[in-house]
Amino acid sequence: MEVTNKYIVIKAKIDGKPQESDFEFKTETLSLPINPVSNDIIVKNLCISIDPYQINRMKTVSASQETSEFAAGISPGEVIVAFGVGKVVASHNPKFEKGDYVVGHISWGEYSISQGFILNKLDPMGFPLSYHVGILGLAGLTAYAGFFEVCKPKKGEKVFVSAACGSVGNLVGQYAKNFGCYVVGCAGSAKKVKLLKEKLGFDEAFNYKEETDLNLTLKRYFPDGIDIYFDNVGGEMLEAAISTMNLHGRVALCGIISEYTNAGKRAAPDMLSVMYKSITIQGFLVGNYLHLFPEFLKLTIDHLRTGKMHVLEDVSFGLESVPSAFVGLFRGDNVGKRCVQVSQD
Amino acid sequence: MEVTNKYIVIKAKIDGKPQESDFEFKTETLSLPINPVSNDIIVKNLCISIDPYQINRMKTVSASQETSEFAAGISPGEVIVAFGVGKVVASHNPKFEKGDYVVGHISWGEYSISQGFILNKLDPMGFPLSYHVGILGLAGLTAYAGFFEVCKPKKGEKVFVSAACGSVGNLVGQYAKNFGCYVVGCAGSAKKVKLLKEKLGFDEAFNYKEETDLNLTLKRYFPDGIDIYFDNVGGEMLEAAISTMNLHGRVALCGIISEYTNAGKRAAPDMLSVMYKSITIQGFLVGNYLHLFPEFLKLTIDHLRTGKMHVLEDVSFGLESVPSAFVGLFRGDNVGKRCVQVSQD
Repeated sequence: MEVTNKYIVIKAKIDGKPQESDFEFKTETLSLPINPVSNDIIVKNLCISIDPYQINRMKTVSASQETSEFAAGISPGEVIVAFGVGKVVASHNPKFEKGDYVVGHISWGEYSISQGFILNKLDPMGFPLSYHVGILGLAGLTAYAGFFEVCKPKKGEKVFVSAACGSVGNLVGQYAKNFGCYVVGCAGSAKKVKLLKEKLGFDEAFNYKEETDLNLTLKRYFPDGIDIYFDNVGGEMLEAAISTMNLHGRVALCGIISEYTNAGKRAAPDMLSVMYKSITIQGFLVGNYLHLFPEFLKLTIDHLRTGKMHVLEDVSFGLESVPSAFVGLFRGDNVGKRCVQVSQD
Repeated sequence: MEVTNKYIVIKAKIDGKPQESDFEFKTETLSLPINPVSNDIIVKNLCISIDPYQINRMKTVSASQETSEFAAGISPGEVIVAFGVGKVVASHNPKFEKGDYVVGHISWGEYSISQGFILNKLDPMGFPLSYHVGILGLAGLTAYAGFFEVCKPKKGEKVFVSAACGSVGNLVGQYAKNFGCYVVGCAGSAKKVKLLKEKLGFDEAFNYKEETDLNLTLKRYFPDGIDIYFDNVGGEMLEAAISTMNLHGRVALCGIISEYTNAGKRAAPDMLSVMYKSITIQGFLVGNYLHLFPEFLKLTIDHLRTGKMHVLEDVSFGLESVPSAFVGLFRGDNVGKRCVQVSQD
């Protein structure tokens, strides 16, 4: 078995905002068996998740690379591992057969070669494959675990979500509404604000780009204060949320996109507020919560089937669109979960 | 019953480092009954706790004043409520009799008048009264609850304590050592460092004033990283601790003395580290943990009686010494729990 694989690499480490010219396409030949006792499989990539955190792996130095296998540094010229869904085309691994759908670590390429460690067989259950990259995949589990486990919500609490039209934010807001919270989201365009309020059922939403004083903005939307802040952006929004927070408020630190491409920029939340209001700020990674996958899937599929949750996804087509899809994340031009359909099933 | 009470007030709001000249002494006559159906008692103040957080109540504006009754603003000319131990000299309250020792809210004065709401009868149990202001009082409970409830330690974990010779820090370090952790403290003089290592049993201690790069310092003392940081100071030390922290590290935010008198100064911890290392930063107030008082007292008395804990206190004498005792806190010149013995029992 031999396939020709086109894949994407970084030309050099990227320490600012990424540009399409930072990437290039390469071609290789993949063949099995690599050696007679290998467990290798070749996967045809179908749908690749496009995630902002990947930029941290492309930097010269980043906290991510020191601490997390999942976020190990990417070297120039090297295959870029990414979450996604694919189909096995050749297997020397007893756990996988040709034709199986798989979900987990694939790559920014047409094919992936893998020993199967971080791949699982996938039953699409009648849903589009892209759902298993987003709402029924890691984005969904991140939102579910972050909201229910990290934020420990109570019904009626006031929840603020930043990047609320993003892959995780839109789901957090929907879980929170279905759970019985008051939910306000912020996003970066009028179109997104309209979507949040009209399609996803957020109580309120605002365009942060139109606001001049985020403290005043948050006090306007939360006259009784914020109980839970689900943070996807960091920076000034985190500072403002903490200053608007109630006693025993909780911050789930899920993403810090404002700082990913701007290392000099850091939030300086008022720690006196954190102390006097007994606020908890908790960073988390979805990898801590994989054991919740079954309960997450059950609730989410139930919400999907009863129309209580809506899918917001932003799919582009063809491997060639990966660099522009990725670069666009940092301009905020995605609406919902961004993924690239590399190939038809 | 009538007594002449000398007490201390602030002349005006204090927005920087306090100075002795910011305070003045006043005299009033207190008499019972204030009205026939009152529950008032008059307490002769014996030992007053001198605490850094009081500066936040003396500022024009502070997060503390918006959020916590305990930390309500103090107006110029007004009696300054403080934690301490006293003795009832007159009572119109059925819960208290003349001669009772009491602990709770007294004041920066020779006498306090109170309705008894935030005062409890005290059994000194043979210990000096000053112990009930420090190791067996709120300082002790703060250390106990902050370490055991907020930090959730496991045996063998690596614990860092700042202001480790302070009223709370020295006790946190001792609880942590007795519990089976590796403990390093920082303080601001060679004398304090010696005390921490030789008297209190810290594994290591250092003088932060002699260090030029706190990240390197912490990496030297924690080659395997910090699991728990008990923060009494905020600022650069918080930033460095977070950068040295292990996966699932916990920060108990107990005090932020570096920022109390310097509102422009704020820590900007690297939130990418907080996220990627799944760190929790939790602010807390001892008031959240009053229900733990019995178990705290039991353990602490046991440790005292078996010699597993040592008392570090810094007592001055006479009401006149209160302003200098307070002002000195912000130069770090206290060693252990600072209190003022206003009167002999």
